[in-house]
Parts: sequence; structure tokens; C-alpha cells
Amino acid sequence: MAHTILDTINSPADLRKLAPEKLPQLAAELRKFIIEIVATKEGHLGASLGVVELTLALHYVFKTPEDLLVWDVGHQAYGHKILTGRRDNFHTNRQLGGLSGFPKRSESEYDTFGVGHSSTAISAALGMALASNLKGEFQKQHIAVVGDASIASGMAFEGLNHAGVTNANLLIILNDNAIGIDPSVGALKNYLTKARVGYKPKQDNIIEALNFKYFGPVDGHDLESLTSTLKELKEISGPKFLHVITTKGKGLKKAEEDQVKYHAPGKFVPDTGELLPYDTKGLPLKFQDVFGLTLVELAEQNEKIIGITPAMPTGSSLKYMMQAFPERAFDVGIAEQHAVTLAAGMATQGFTVFCTIYSTFLQRAYDQVIHDVALQKLPVIFCLDRAGLVGEDGATHHGAFDIAYLRCIPNMSIFAPLDEVDLRNMLYTAQKDVLSGPLAIRYPRGRGSKKDWQLPFDKLLIGKGRKLQQGTVIAVLSFGAIGVNVIEALEDLPKQKEIGHYDMRFAKPLDEELLHEIFAGYKAVVTIEDGVVNGGFGSAVTEFAQQHDYHLPVKILGLPDRFIDHGKVTELQEITKIDVDHIRKYLNDFLDNFE
Amino acid sequence: MAHTILDTINSPADLRKLAPEKLPQLAAELRKFIIEIVATKEGHLGASLGVVELTLALHYVFKTPEDLLVWDVGHQAYGHKILTGRRDNFHTNRQLGGLSGFPKRSESEYDTFGVGHSSTAISAALGMALASNLKGEFQKQHIAVVGDASIASGMAFEGLNHAGVTNANLLIILNDNAIGIDPSVGALKNYLTKARVGYKPKQDNIIEALNFKYFGPVDGHDLESLTSTLKELKEISGPKFLHVITTKGKGLKKAEEDQVKYHAPGKFVPDTGELLPYDTKGLPLKFQDVFGLTLVELAEQNEKIIGITPAMPTGSSLKYMMQAFPERAFDVGIAEQHAVTLAAGMATQGFTVFCTIYSTFLQRAYDQVIHDVALQKLPVIFCLDRAGLVGEDGATHHGAFDIAYLRCIPNMSIFAPLDEVDLRNMLYTAQKDVLSGPLAIRYPRGRGSKKDWQLPFDKLLIGKGRKLQQGTVIAVLSFGAIGVNVIEALEDLPKQKEIGHYDMRFAKPLDEELLHEIFAGYKAVVTIEDGVVNGGFGSAVTEFAQQHDYHLPVKILGLPDRFIDHGKVTELQEITKIDVDHIRKYLNDFLDNFE
Repeated sequence: MAHTILDTINSPADLRKLAPEKLPQLAAELRKFIIEIVATKEGHLGASLGVVELTLALHYVFKTPEDLLVWDVGHQAYGHKILTGRRDNFHTNRQLGGLSGFPKRSESEYDTFGVGHSSTAISAALGMALASNLKGEFQKQHIAVVGDASIASGMAFEGLNHAGVTNANLLIILNDNAIGIDPSVGALKNYLTKARVGYKPKQDNIIEALNFKYFGPVDGHDLESLTSTLKELKEISGPKFLHVITTKGKGLKKAEEDQVKYHAPGKFVPDTGELLPYDTKGLPLKFQDVFGLTLVELAEQNEKIIGITPAMPTGSSLKYMMQAFPERAFDVGIAEQHAVTLAAGMATQGFTVFCTIYSTFLQRAYDQVIHDVALQKLPVIFCLDRAGLVGEDGATHHGAFDIAYLRCIPNMSIFAPLDEVDLRNMLYTAQKDVLSGPLAIRYPRGRGSKKDWQLPFDKLLIGKGRKLQQGTVIAVLSFGAIGVNVIEALEDLPKQKEIGHYDMRFAKPLDEELLHEIFAGYKAVVTIEDGVVNGGFGSAVTEFAQQHDYHLPVKILGLPDRFIDHGKVTELQEITKIDVDHIRKYLNDFLDNFE
Repeated sequence: MAHTILDTINSPADLRKLAPEKLPQLAAELRKFIIEIVATKEGHLGASLGVVELTLALHYVFKTPEDLLVWDVGHQAYGHKILTGRRDNFHTNRQLGGLSGFPKRSESEYDTFGVGHSSTAISAALGMALASNLKGEFQKQHIAVVGDASIASGMAFEGLNHAGVTNANLLIILNDNAIGIDPSVGALKNYLTKARVGYKPKQDNIIEALNFKYFGPVDGHDLESLTSTLKELKEISGPKFLHVITTKGKGLKKAEEDQVKYHAPGKFVPDTGELLPYDTKGLPLKFQDVFGLTLVELAEQNEKIIGITPAMPTGSSLKYMMQAFPERAFDVGIAEQHAVTLAAGMATQGFTVFCTIYSTFLQRAYDQVIHDVALQKLPVIFCLDRAGLVGEDGATHHGAFDIAYLRCIPNMSIFAPLDEVDLRNMLYTAQKDVLSGPLAIRYPRGRGSKKDWQLPFDKLLIGKGRKLQQGTVIAVLSFGAIGVNVIEALEDLPKQKEIGHYDMRFAKPLDEELLHEIFAGYKAVVTIEDGVVNGGFGSAVTEFAQQHDYHLPVKILGLPDRFIDHGKVTELQEITKIDVDHIRKYLNDFLDNFE
């Protein structure tokens, strides 16, 4: 992979030495470099291809890292990483011990703010800009690059609304490609689209109404326009806004044509973009598809069912219901807060709302879950996708905290399926009768363990667990799909008859009847969950034990009290000691105490 | 209190029988009724006085409760309550067992959605409106009344952005009085102010840009304009927006003049508005004032200190710093998400940021605490005001969950002061050295126990608790100001020498050294906290005990797993059994087990 110019760029200072006429060639080389590495190593493709010219122009015009550049979300920051001293490590992107897929402060001084979740960049950059003013650094520039899907999120609006009344040297660059991971939605998007097609913003342009100086739209693939506009903006103090039009996937035809698929396409042929076949035959279905397809089946029978996703129709597989019942399935954009309270409003009118949100993103709507749903005992069903370790997306995206942060909420029930069939049956159960309050169903990213998932529906009991295996000494209480690791661990355990295994199914309400049976019948209890130990499922079991004066040892396995970086899920399970081998060894050693 | 017309209004149906010319008299009577009751019973005054005419007009024109009316926040809904069958109970407002200070679904069918926190009404009403469309009820109207401070919050924008692309029969009424609890801030507010003073919105008015039909501004105290405009709007389908200009405190001169003070003025003379003196001599200062005044003292010494509040300068007492150091203290409006990430951005530049947020409102910024602050180990100091039971504001406002929802976050420290001196010393400590990560300082609403609070600063140790009293049988571990109840309970306990008392100070990190000493030295442990038991401080202690193989009984006192309604704090402590008498009796009874 010879890249004549790119190979000489070890930092933006090198870039800034180039004559402007060299930039187009560097753009081509950078694009090729990204394509070649992502083609074999996988990762996020389309967003970074779309901002190759913008990335070059920013580092060319501004004096990074003194000028502070914040990438919103960070899917688009591969070019930035490559230009800021990480070219030769870029092949380790998203791998265990390798570069993070997102900007990360601990990785580079050019990564001024860690990102991953959307719409944080304006607030962060504004904070930096106000700090610079306090330090008397009035020449310093602060730039937030925000996508059009992200800028429609409430948090971004809050940042704009504040920035507009400050004298901060803040430049917001709207990277408008009309798509997030899925196509952008909402009234603001429609408004921005008018600007894209030549509508001339007037005095009270929506951005100018918020007191920003508005520039653009400019062609985000025209290096000359970009650099000249940025140079002009650099000399203007106060809050300013540049609308840049880009094409997601730019430079790889297939990626431009199917932008959803090529957001993170997996392995592909670099030259053509042709996806490399990935044999899924014989593998269980993804939990996401079990959710999406089952919801369609249920919605066919039950006209009260509504589905809501905040901007993840493809990722969550709500797309199936959106195709089958477009009037009853809503993509509300990156608006988790709104999604939850919208669901609450619909629930007051007698609808059965399945609100599917990634576990890590429900953190964005925590107050709405408490204040608008649980307090009113509204039977909203939260389908918490990507709960537990998610793998390559890393620390920002693990669904590690939901058991703990939901368990403290009154009226809330929390279920986790052991496998696809359990998920399917709980979706069925949740809409069969009216629930007495909200129900969270948490399931992991990716495939489970059951191939024959589409069995006839079976109603489950809310708050009831089940015994998978009777034992005599230690009872293992698992919560959710991590129980499959326990099943495997027990298969090869010499003294497996001494171990009981219970699939508790609910972290809340606990199956107290079953717990009494367990605490009366064993010498020790081990709990395991794919979530943080602090305050989680095992913690609930210890609370139960203390409340009922059981003084057996209770050992809690789960995620430790630190953020877990990126890597394969299997690797991260090893690190956090919830993989099959660690569980087996732990139980074996623990049994020794009771000989 | 003779109210000729008001006495005949037992429901909006009665109201709708009145001739329009009777409405001004009814408005005067309703205003008088509100003033007379709030003058003696206390509560929120200004907001409800400002919407007397709007309230009458809405119930007069729309067919409530079939047409669905959602009040945002709900401070302004007293008139609504009085007109919807609750006139004769209104004197019980905010009292234990009485009416809630906010609309509440369980209280009346006219209260279509429970509120308390801001900016939820648009999402909720949109959910109802979309539900009506699905049911084929296309004539049904759905109205959200939103204040100008609330509409600037991100969540409200998310609702607008979605509503604008639907055909929902949604009417958003902007109740624009230019103030929330404190004066409104932000760029949107400035924009709206232009409209107030006669600026004529054009084609691309900010609201029309989001695809709403825009009407107004109209005078919110002119019943004729209001009713005629609402009648017109009733016939228009799809999303529409009415800008209404009102005066907070309308009709009571003093309340109009000092809108901040008369938001919730305490007792006053109904005719004049004159506040009744409230003797605070000899009482300890409020925790809020200790926070606010101490921060000014520290900011005088340390120029790196910054203060941030999302719309609560008066309530939190950050106003003192805003007065003393306006360039370093920020009111960002109702924008908790932005407040937290703004703080994170400033912290990256070396500033020591005190971000003061009510415990219940930090729920709005949960993801930002995790993703933008804790993950990056930024030393932001969260001053969690109104933690624990808050009293008359009730279920929506208790700061019940913070210990549980913060404890599961890696890198987070959680401190609670026993008294004002502790709070002061921790504020001092937090800015003295650079912390290794975020610190939450949770303290209750109102006054503590120490009158002499302004002592020389004393540095505390992060993660260390202290022994208040040595005992022999039971160790009581308290967290925060609830420990004062334990101190009082122990004073009158016959066998007080058998009880040890430890002020643990930190729920995280736990003082493990002290805990080892306690678990080795006592026969049982009792924990107490002013927060939910599930996943809270006591839960952390049980996790510690299990991890270290201590099998003593650990009993957890704290808030139960249900929402707690409104009432005086002392009454609510009794109900939740964390008052002095219950603690004393509990310990006395528990001791019997160890005789």
C-alpha cells in the first residue's frame, strides 16, 4: 500500500507544510488507506469516507491540537486518527489492546474529548471555548463536527441554545449527509434538506435565530471551498455555524449507493466494495432479529402493539415492523428522551408499546423511565438491546449498567432471556395481558444459543425463575444469556452433581419462593450476570439473603467496577472472568471449601 | 370566601354552560381563590396566577377530558385543579394525604399525564395524539401547555422535531412569561422575546421551520382573544403552535414585581401579597446557602473554580457566585444534559467545576455523567441538592435514587455530609487537590443541624468514614444527614452503650479499613440512608460483607421500593421508618436478638 504523501504525514504539522494543490492527492490516498484497512479489519466505513476532505481541511487550516477539535459520535474520525500519528497502528482499530474505534483522550492529545454516544460535541466544545476565554486565550478556536442526525437530538439543541448567548470562539460544523446510521428523520432534517437543494437561508434562518453566524452550505468534497471558508471563519470570533454537505461512503460506489449497509459493512473487497460472504448457515439467529420478527408476528394478531426506536431501525431490527406496519412503528431519530415519554403517552391511551433502545442509550432517558413511565405504572415494554458486553464498540457502548440503574426504580420489572426462545416468549407474554407496570427485557448483541427459535408461543410468569439443574452444595443463579456459559461450564465439571443451576429470569421482582428454596437447600450461592456487580442482580440476591436472615456465602460474578475497553466479546468475557473456563474453575475451587 | 360563579363550577361542563361575558368575573374569582388558599397553605403561586385566563379558555373551548390537556411541569395547574372537581379539596394541596401539587393521573381523569419535571408535555401529548389517530379518533384534540423555560430544554425540542413530521392533532401552547423559576436564559428565549415585542414572524419562523402552523402572539390575559383563537385552532388539524404572552403572578402586584420570590412565596397576606415574617433566628442555615456561600469563599481563593446550574440559581444558591463572579458562574437553563457535558469540557481545560443539580434532575443527565465525565475520569464535582426526601413536592421530586444510580458507575465517588460543616469541608477538599475522577456530594433540602457552620476549613479524606460512637453489639452505619436521626435516637436508647455509630461519609469508595474493623468488632450491622434501599448504600455494605466472607446480619434501613407521595419531610420519614422514633425502636428490638 504505497501512499506517497500519506506516508510522510506523521502529524497535522506535516500536513500543514503541504502546498494546497497536494491536498486532493492526499485525500485520495487517505480514502484508499481507510478502505483497504476497513475492508479486512472491519469497522465503520461510510462516515469516515464522507469527511476525508473535511478532515484534511480542518487540520490544514486550524492549528491542532492547540485549536481544539471535537468529533461528535466519532464514527467519522478514522481519517483524523490516521493523520494524527496513528497511521501505522490503524490496523489495530477496534481490536483488543488496539486503537479505539472512537476518539479517546487517553489515546492522543488530538482526541480532545472522548465520544461514542451522539450529540455531546457542542456542549463539550463550548465548555472548552468558555474555559479558553477565562484563561484569556481569545485566539483559540474550538470546533465541533456534528452530523445531521446528531444535531436533531435534544442535547445538541441545549448546547446551541446556550452557545448562542455566549461570545465563545465556537465553530459548529454540520456534517450533513442526510443519514445517521439509518436515514435521518424529523422536521429539522426536512428543513436542512431545503438548504441542501439550494434554498437560501434568510434573516431568520433557524440557526441564525439561535444567534449563530451561519455559513454555507458548502460542498464537503471541494477542498478549495472548504479551506477558504474555514480560513474565513477562523478570523471571526463568537459562535458560528458552517453547513457542509457530504456524501456518506464517498469514493466507494457501493458504499455511496447503500449507505445503511456500508455504515459498518464487515469484510469486503477494497477495490469494488463487494461484500465478502459470511456463512450464517447453521448459526442461531441474532437476538435482534428474533425481536424484530417476533414483534411482526405479534403485531399481526394484536392491533394495540406499537414499536418505537430512537434511530436504530436496522440495528434493533424494528425495521421489520416498520415495513409491515408503518403506521404503528416509529423511528423518532436520536431522541431517547422523547421516545420514552412518547411511549408513555401512547400507553395512557391503551396501547402496548415496545420501546426498543440499546441498553447504553437508555441512559439518555433515565429520568423519563422513572418520572413518566414507572411513577405512573404505565405498562411500557423496554426492549434493551445490546445489554452486557458489546465487543468492539468498547467502553462507551457496553450495556453494563442497566440492571443496577433499573433495579432501584419502583414498579419496574427486569427480565433477561437465556436464549432466543425465552426472548420470543417474553415478547408474547408482555403483550398478552396488560402489565402492572413497565417491563425491561434485556438481551445481548448478536447471536444466542438456540437455532429453533420459532416455536409456538408459551406464556411465561412475571417474576418467576426456573431450575435448570438440581445440585447439593452450590447453587448458581444466572441472569440472562450468560447462563449459557454456566451450562457449558457445568458440562465439563467433575463434580457437576454438587452444583445446582437456576435461570432466575428476573432481576426484579426476584422469585422469592425459588430463592427461599435455594437458600434453604444449599451451602452457598453464586450469582452471575453480564452487567456490573455493583448494585446489580447479585446485589439484589444479597439484599434478599440479608432481609431473610440467610447467612450463606453469596458470591457475585459479573463486570467489575471499571470501564471495559473494546475487543471481541469472548475476549472481554475472559478479562472479566465470566467466560466458560473461568466459571468452571471458579466453581471447582469454590467447591473445595465445602469438602 | 364567597365566589358566586366559581362555587357553581364543579366540572368543566359547568364552565362551558356559562355565557362568555361571565368569564372575566370567574377569572377574578378563581384568581382570588388561588391567592387566598396559597396565602395560608403555601405552594406555587405565580405560575397559576399567570394562566388563570388561559386555563378558563382551554376548558371552555375544548371538551375536556375527552380532549386531552397536558400541563408541562404543572406548577401552573392550580386553576385547572380547582375547575376540575377539586375546588373543595384544594386547601389540602401538597399536604400529606391531600392533593398533589402537580397534575397526577390517579387524582383525576382531567390530569391526563403526571408531571413535575419539565419539558415532557410535548412528547406525552404527541403520543396521545398519534394513539388517537390509530384509533380513528381524528377529531380529538391534544394540547400541551409549555412554559418558555421548559420549551428550551432538549427534550421539548425532540418532541417538536418529531411532531412536525406527523399529522397529529397536537396544539402546543407556549405560555411565555419570560421566566421559569428564575428568569429564562438562552438564545431561544431571546428569539421569543423579539416576538413578544411585536416582531412579526416570517415564513421561516423557527417554529414554522419545524413544520408547525404558528399562531400568535396573543395576550394571555385577554379572554376574548384567547377563546376566539382557540376556537379557530380547534378546527385546524395537524401540529399547530400558539404563542401566548402572560405575566407570572398576574393580579397580585407584589407577585408581578418579584416573580422569583413569588414562585413559591410561603405564607403571605392575601390582599396585599405582603410576606409573613418567618423567624429563622437560631435556626441552622440551609444546606443550599452553605453550599452557595462557601463556593464564593472558595472562588475568591481559587480562580479555577467554575459553577454551573441548570435553571436553579435561586434554589441551589449558586446565585451568590453568579453575583460575585458572573464570568465564572453559569445558569444554562433547563438543560441538565448540556450542563454536565459543558462541565466535562471545562474540566478538560483544567478548571474545577462545581455542577449543582437537584438529585432528581440529575436523572436527566445520567448518560452524560457516565459517558462524558466518569469514563474520562474528569474531576467534575456534582453538588446533588435536594437528595433524599424533599417533602411537599412529592414523588416526582424526591432525590431517592442517586446513591443507587451513581454507585454502579466506575470512577465515581459519592459523599454525603452529616451536617453543614461537613458539606463546607468537602467543598473545600474537592477543590484543594485535583480529584482522580468525579465526586458527587449529596445533601438534603433545607436546614441541617449545625448552627456554627462557618468554621475554618478542614480537609477531609476521600473514601474515609469516622466513628461517632463506639459500641459492642450493633454497629449503625449512617450515610449523610440522616445520621442526625441516629444520633438523636441513640441519646434516649436505654442500652446505647451497646450500639456503635459510624458516619460513613462515602457510599463509594467504601472505607474498607473501617468496615473490616466494624465487621470484626460487632455482632450485627444496621445501615441507614435517605435513599432507596435497592442498590443503595446498605446494598454496598452487604456486597462488601459477602466479598470478604463476613456473615453477620446486615439490616438496611432506607426508602422502600415504592414511590413516596408528598407531605412534610418529618411525616414522610415516619412513613418510611427512618425517623428518630422508628430508628430507636428498631435498634431496641434488634438488640433483643443478641441478649
